[in-house]
Amino acid sequence: MRNDGRDTNQLRPVTIETDYLVHPEGSVLITVGQTKVICTATIEDRIPSFLRGQGKGWITAEYSMLPRATGSRTQREATKGKIGGRTMEIQRLIGRALRAVVNLEALGERTLWIDCDVIQADGGTRTASITGAFVAMTMAIAKLQDAKQLPEFPVTDFLAATSVGMDEELGAILDLNYLEDSTANVDMNIIQTGSGQFVELQGTGEEATFTRQQLNEMLDLGDEGIKKLIEIQKEALGEIADRIGYQLGVL
Amino acid sequence: MRNDGRDTNQLRPVTIETDYLVHPEGSVLITVGQTKVICTATIEDRIPSFLRGQGKGWITAEYSMLPRATGSRTQREATKGKIGGRTMEIQRLIGRALRAVVNLEALGERTLWIDCDVIQADGGTRTASITGAFVAMTMAIAKLQDAKQLPEFPVTDFLAATSVGMDEELGAILDLNYLEDSTANVDMNIIQTGSGQFVELQGTGEEATFTRQQLNEMLDLGDEGIKKLIEIQKEALGEIADRIGYQLGVL
Amino acid sequence: MRNDGRDTNQLRPVTIETDYLVHPEGSVLITVGQTKVICTATIEDRIPSFLRGQGKGWITAEYSMLPRATGSRTQREATKGKIGGRTMEIQRLIGRALRAVVNLEALGERTLWIDCDVIQADGGTRTASITGAFVAMTMAIAKLQDAKQLPEFPVTDFLAATSVGMDEELGAILDLNYLEDSTANVDMNIIQTGSGQFVELQGTGEEATFTRQQLNEMLDLGDEGIKKLIEIQKEALGEIADRIGYQLGVL
Amino acid sequence: MRNDGRDTNQLRPVTIETDYLVHPEGSVLITVGQTKVICTATIEDRIPSFLRGQGKGWITAEYSMLPRATGSRTQREATKGKIGGRTMEIQRLIGRALRAVVNLEALGERTLWIDCDVIQADGGTRTASITGAFVAMTMAIAKLQDAKQLPEFPVTDFLAATSVGMDEELGAILDLNYLEDSTANVDMNIIQTGSGQFVELQGTGEEATFTRQQLNEMLDLGDEGIKKLIEIQKEALGEIADRIGYQLGVL
Amino acid sequence: MRNDGRDTNQLRPVTIETDYLVHPEGSVLITVGQTKVICTATIEDRIPSFLRGQGKGWITAEYSMLPRATGSRTQREATKGKIGGRTMEIQRLIGRALRAVVNLEALGERTLWIDCDVIQADGGTRTASITGAFVAMTMAIAKLQDAKQLPEFPVTDFLAATSVGMDEELGAILDLNYLEDSTANVDMNIIQTGSGQFVELQGTGEEATFTRQQLNEMLDLGDEGIKKLIEIQKEALGEIADRIGYQLGVL
Amino acid sequence: MRNDGRDTNQLRPVTIETDYLVHPEGSVLITVGQTKVICTATIEDRIPSFLRGQGKGWITAEYSMLPRATGSRTQREATKGKIGGRTMEIQRLIGRALRAVVNLEALGERTLWIDCDVIQADGGTRTASITGAFVAMTMAIAKLQDAKQLPEFPVTDFLAATSVGMDEELGAILDLNYLEDSTANVDMNIIQTGSGQFVELQGTGEEATFTRQQLNEMLDLGDEGIKKLIEIQKEALGEIADRIGYQLGVL
Repeated sequence: MRNDGRDTNQLRPVTIETDYLVHPEGSVLITVGQTKVICTATIEDRIPSFLRGQGKGWITAEYSMLPRATGSRTQREATKGKIGGRTMEIQRLIGRALRAVVNLEALGERTLWIDCDVIQADGGTRTASITGAFVAMTMAIAKLQDAKQLPEFPVTDFLAATSVGMDEELGAILDLNYLEDSTANVDMNIIQTGSGQFVELQGTGEEATFTRQQLNEMLDLGDEGIKKLIEIQKEALGEIADRIGYQLGVL
Repeated sequence: MRNDGRDTNQLRPVTIETDYLVHPEGSVLITVGQTKVICTATIEDRIPSFLRGQGKGWITAEYSMLPRATGSRTQREATKGKIGGRTMEIQRLIGRALRAVVNLEALGERTLWIDCDVIQADGGTRTASITGAFVAMTMAIAKLQDAKQLPEFPVTDFLAATSVGMDEELGAILDLNYLEDSTANVDMNIIQTGSGQFVELQGTGEEATFTRQQLNEMLDLGDEGIKKLIEIQKEALGEIADRIGYQLGVL
Repeated sequence: MRNDGRDTNQLRPVTIETDYLVHPEGSVLITVGQTKVICTATIEDRIPSFLRGQGKGWITAEYSMLPRATGSRTQREATKGKIGGRTMEIQRLIGRALRAVVNLEALGERTLWIDCDVIQADGGTRTASITGAFVAMTMAIAKLQDAKQLPEFPVTDFLAATSVGMDEELGAILDLNYLEDSTANVDMNIIQTGSGQFVELQGTGEEATFTRQQLNEMLDLGDEGIKKLIEIQKEALGEIADRIGYQLGVL
Repeated sequence: MRNDGRDTNQLRPVTIETDYLVHPEGSVLITVGQTKVICTATIEDRIPSFLRGQGKGWITAEYSMLPRATGSRTQREATKGKIGGRTMEIQRLIGRALRAVVNLEALGERTLWIDCDVIQADGGTRTASITGAFVAMTMAIAKLQDAKQLPEFPVTDFLAATSVGMDEELGAILDLNYLEDSTANVDMNIIQTGSGQFVELQGTGEEATFTRQQLNEMLDLGDEGIKKLIEIQKEALGEIADRIGYQLGVL
Repeated sequence: MRNDGRDTNQLRPVTIETDYLVHPEGSVLITVGQTKVICTATIEDRIPSFLRGQGKGWITAEYSMLPRATGSRTQREATKGKIGGRTMEIQRLIGRALRAVVNLEALGERTLWIDCDVIQADGGTRTASITGAFVAMTMAIAKLQDAKQLPEFPVTDFLAATSVGMDEELGAILDLNYLEDSTANVDMNIIQTGSGQFVELQGTGEEATFTRQQLNEMLDLGDEGIKKLIEIQKEALGEIADRIGYQLGVL
Repeated sequence: MRNDGRDTNQLRPVTIETDYLVHPEGSVLITVGQTKVICTATIEDRIPSFLRGQGKGWITAEYSMLPRATGSRTQREATKGKIGGRTMEIQRLIGRALRAVVNLEALGERTLWIDCDVIQADGGTRTASITGAFVAMTMAIAKLQDAKQLPEFPVTDFLAATSVGMDEELGAILDLNYLEDSTANVDMNIIQTGSGQFVELQGTGEEATFTRQQLNEMLDLGDEGIKKLIEIQKEALGEIADRIGYQLGVL
């Protein structure tokens, strides 16, 4: 049995509290077990210079952890004066993933700034960030639509992320907490759409390797987890979820 | 009347939620009106090199705001690669203030790291940080004492902070929100102990000036506000508040 | 008696040498005891972007110390690659203080760059910087007026700064030198106008506190010191001092 | 047909020139089509502080491109003063991948510095870097063994990397050049051992998605490509390749 | 005799391989003994802001060494986050030298970016960079002329560089390798035109000094070496060399 | 005639005021025409790590200009966050030059920090820095000797620097002021010892070239200027100058 009593194919308890902050256009607090992330979406009426004149928008993300989100204190990147490699990887990943389910032409010449700030960490902070950021972003975009500033709803599908891994004894497991993450042989992050397609797949066996069959077992678990996460996103989004359904042609 | 209906000598609603995070030795979420700050205290068994061999400890603070704590998005200092002047001033102020009410010899050769992260800002973030950080710090120190690692309780008095200002029409006002802060002629931060002594006084009349009499009116209001804040700190600290009382010789 | 033989209410000898350098629009060497600061004022026909289109000017200050201004060598901030918290606080303070006595609309769309470079330090470098910078700035502005580039004289009042503190044995003392500054319980910087109003008040009792009565004693001393400093500024400014008098309506 | 006339399952011409530079312990020039990377391995008799006292070694990698490795000039990261997100991702990936096939205990308390400098880029620079770096690293380690400084040969398996993608018209394709990379819907980097196991899998469909079946087609192609690359590595390594064979128990 | 068997007035073997890379407008690999430098020239249709509106172009250079160009690994400047003093001196020198033989008005409002990347170092990397960069630059400019984008050929003379020094036993020596450079009393870099005039002369006797007579001996050797280097440049340039001849009026 | 009425072989008026500041071990204000530089020497009882265990000392220099040392304001390098190429070249030059006339073994395991801060610039700031720094350094070393901390006097010769150039009309000229420096075809810095030997020679003809004969004319002028500067240094040093004489065997 897993260290927190879960089955191998079981997610941790997940909650998504919307409108968590008063200022941002979209904001949520997502809780996945003990992992807590504030995700906000900001709409800016400008685009980066490399996109000028193309009539489309952009989505970019930043990620950070409070110093004591972790068991021992982590030095602030602002204090160090530079952003580390892990942070850069994660914020590039979040932005890339969200752009895969947004029609940037329909968004128009705007930038969506996604900020994911981990206030408490227990494994899976990057996947929780993506799952939460999708909701914050969609709510911000819905406000734009409500204000009649969009020709059509630009979010083309749901998007959620989770992790899977190979445990020495239990085999493939879903949604690793920090302790599991530290001891697993393989750690894979899966980002999928509501239609079940892959947006991104990142599997690494630091100081270990994995076979094609193990890959398949992990992908099966991931598929199951993503479906449940998207159910939770739909509840959090309420009526706004239907707007995506219309885009998908299922509503 | 003030823009949020308060009397000139009235604080905004203040709450202090203790043990807000699972990892830090002390942590609170302090809410002052719409201003919300997570304050954590971390104990490290090391001291900075300039203190080596003096048999005493140190307290240092860092302060940051989430990008969307504010009405429009503020660029992260980590992204800019350097910490701005305002942040530096505030974190130096927080550390200095807390050190005034801690017996660093009794703390022993340890560093207390105070982190104040503003998740929502509506004026008074630096004073809320000090008021909240005092509670987080005291709780972390109490844990050290519970673990029999301290010869005596090193916190020598209560400490809280608030702001006062001069409004064109209303005269002296207590605990300015963002809108008031933007329009007031004078902005003064007052940090006081439970015994009513000043720890720090910072009054500035950017593009304005103030008289000795106005100073006295503002100091009177501040005194009133600080007393109420210390009551709220005592409730949040519960039994631990008594340990400070013993230090003060009032218990 | 004080370590240099002064009375508690006595300033150190102060001299202000004007036109100290050939290139700047205004420049002085101010000497306060052993503390020596070169203050220059540069006029630039541009304003920072946040002021565009508002028809007014700006005043900004930078502060630095030569590595051997101090008893032991201080590493250059240029070599470290970043400006420390103390420097930031001081340069923000200088700029803010000067802006309080300048009518920025009357200055027009110009930036005044104030540079304060401490070539020898013996306490009170920030207050000497402000007192000297006021003279350098006023002389630069007078040149603008002489060149018929100003509708009216934008300096609205005199401005000087000094420090006061609480000595364990002597009580309140005026204009602390380095040794006094290191041992005083309280250190307070006072910036006042020629009309006796406060522009800024910064009192801190690092590892100590102070009472309302002590505050009042210190403010009385400060008032006395500022009056004498402004007399010295007037002498240094000569005829230009009268232009401020006209603004004040006293001439 | 592909833009350079290859079949969908065909690698570009690959050459690995060993001992390319005179100074490093191991060095190669790897050419994959028009992509050219100098890979060097440096042995340092020190380990990073986080590994002290664990009796094992470390492998770390740095990656860079000459400014004109690319079609238009790219600004140097040294000139910018910081390393970008893409570079960080790649150098973390190279180090992680190599560590998966080295027994760090057998390496002893040494650091292997891997430097991959792209002198000409035409897609696939990160996978070429890994394939080349494996050879440079293995040659450096072989020198250590020849000098009788190793208890056993620490390289436990071969390691190579290639890319696969989904072309709109051709379906799955192997070893994408720059033009293909820019137009493919999906870009996946595969790192595998000589035994055919995955070390790392990174698939991303920026602004596109992919199905489980497409994943399988791409993985099949990758498997084929990796096998050929390892043949080329074996030829380049000559006798040294056998030492890995002994570790694998196949020789 | 010298440590590599050369006469005191003998250059090391020099080769210049043109069109070394496919992307840049001009590129060479210059080899001087064991020293190898990739020099590229990039043409950009922009000029730095300080030249705006003057109707002329600019030439700027950057210089770098691969970490293992040297006997022991040198940390990357990108990793350090700043460019060292030695690199700055060299890249300023290269740019300044090239500008001395180019008519910047005839170049038009363009910037030539020269990149010199040392892939193997054995002394004389800065002089090899200049000698190679001259060829890469001239080829890039010739392409501009071939494309009818230049009113006249802007390269006004040949330019090459070499080093000379004073050996304790052998006296003046030409073209020092790394070992000679480390032991010589004086190290002088000479940059001369095809017409035999000096463009730059930098002689330094770190921890030693030199006389006027020694200076003259070194200058004589340098003159000889530069003449031979220019012969090699002419061969590498082929027909393009004649275009400079026309400028010089010798063809 | 020159723009300031001097003969071609005439230095500007030079003064060296010793003990200019109270804190440093050695300090001068050197004035060369309108150029004014504060040079200080600091003795530190530590050496850089690359010299450990070699029983000898080190001399290192830093150079800076006040923002308004120049006609228009120059941005501080501390504000930019990095030191420019020109500054780096100059501070490396100053340190290298001084080391050429100091017996580092006799200095013992100490570092001499030389700081040259230009408070007013009118050409020749680097040569004035060297000439002044030599005096400040020698005075600091003399204090060490007076305190019986040196086996022998480590300064082995005098050292001064000046500039020479080629004026279009006047031919070779000595000690260029800013205006001459801007218009001269060639600018050469010469650093020589009291014995007349070269320590460093840096001649550059940016956008111009010079002949062997012109070089000789400039060297003759430089020789004359250096001799006069060393006379002025001797006067400033007083009795201490004799200690160098003893080292040179002329006293």
